Amino acid sequence: MARTADPQRHEAKRREMLHAARKCFAEKGFHSTSTAEICRMAGMSPGNLFHYFPTKDAIIQAIAEQDRRETAQLFASLDPEEDAIASVINLAEQTMLHLTDPLYAKLSLELAAEAMRNPAIAEMFAVNDRESSQALTALLRRGVERGEIDSGLDLDRSALWLIALVEGAIGRAAMDPGFDAGAHIDTLTKLISRFLAPRAPQAAHGGHAG
Amino acid sequence: MARTADPQRHEAKRREMLHAARKCFAEKGFHSTSTAEICRMAGMSPGNLFHYFPTKDAIIQAIAEQDRRETAQLFASLDPEEDAIASVINLAEQTMLHLTDPLYAKLSLELAAEAMRNPAIAEMFAVNDRESSQALTALLRRGVERGEIDSGLDLDRSALWLIALVEGAIGRAAMDPGFDAGAHIDTLTKLISRFLAPRAPQAAHGGHAG
Repeated sequence: MARTADPQRHEAKRREMLHAARKCFAEKGFHSTSTAEICRMAGMSPGNLFHYFPTKDAIIQAIAEQDRRETAQLFASLDPEEDAIASVINLAEQTMLHLTDPLYAKLSLELAAEAMRNPAIAEMFAVNDRESSQALTALLRRGVERGEIDSGLDLDRSALWLIALVEGAIGRAAMDPGFDAGAHIDTLTKLISRFLAPRAPQAAHGGHAG
Repeated sequence: MARTADPQRHEAKRREMLHAARKCFAEKGFHSTSTAEICRMAGMSPGNLFHYFPTKDAIIQAIAEQDRRETAQLFASLDPEEDAIASVINLAEQTMLHLTDPLYAKLSLELAAEAMRNPAIAEMFAVNDRESSQALTALLRRGVERGEIDSGLDLDRSALWLIALVEGAIGRAAMDPGFDAGAHIDTLTKLISRFLAPRAPQAAHGGHAG
């Protein structure tokens, strides 16, 4: 079994296959993509895919795991000393710039549509979603504890809206090839910081400062 | 031609067909739905669909036109004397409550995925999108002119983010059958009003009011 003799080479091939699968699914859709096409896109002989992934669902599982690792790394890369609102903006900005890649945006939309009818796929992404929501809620809570974020917000629901916001932008990018994420960062930054900022005392509204 | 003799009956049948088509597309997907299934769902004999819609694309076109009319009616129902932020919240809330219907949410996601690969469908929804964006931007502009909305915002981009926000929530509702839109209105209201509100003078931050 020569193919298992070199784990590094096996891992590199596996990544190539996954990248090819992402491209095929994003361009043609999950159902319309054959495993032969994935092999062609990856420049491998047909049938080779089975050495790496036994089924198409196994490919989606591997994609979900890659996404999960990337999100975990993104959260881990944050400086815990940084202002919590700055960290949320940082996360949103990095996700936004990542999604200017139409491949990523189209694949997200395709997999979301597929997940509606395939409970196994829905569950793979539901796990990722729970992890991101929890990590974001924890970040918001840290901000509240430090007085950097409004203590009057419902943090679970605020996290959900922040995620919906970025997911809405992913949808935009998927539908509109000319969508320029960079051009929208300024307004996104205002939206997030105004939403989360601690409420000032009512001084500005009538001099009741205390 | 008895079927054209009664335009009201024809219109009623056409609406039934459209509703059946929406259900089929939302549940099974656009490609996996046959015209025979739409007829069965509508309780009509197979082949009847052709009297109302010559092709599946014509059904999507009719759905897009229904959506367009509904959105136009929603904007037309706003009281022009109402505070602009209250009107935006009103729009967002009505759209949110509409989308608690999983049929609507799932169909939106399905059609968005289909539009990625079908330029004709993409164009039908792009027309709706341009109209909503323009109507929302006009509403924001009226708010700025009256001093109800921050004049420092980029209004086109603000409108886009408000739409992305609601679209993100539609995606959530499509993926999660337990999504309770009503429970999220309070946080959405805070998000929108804080984002759009005119900026208070800097009094609260260090006494530079004036």
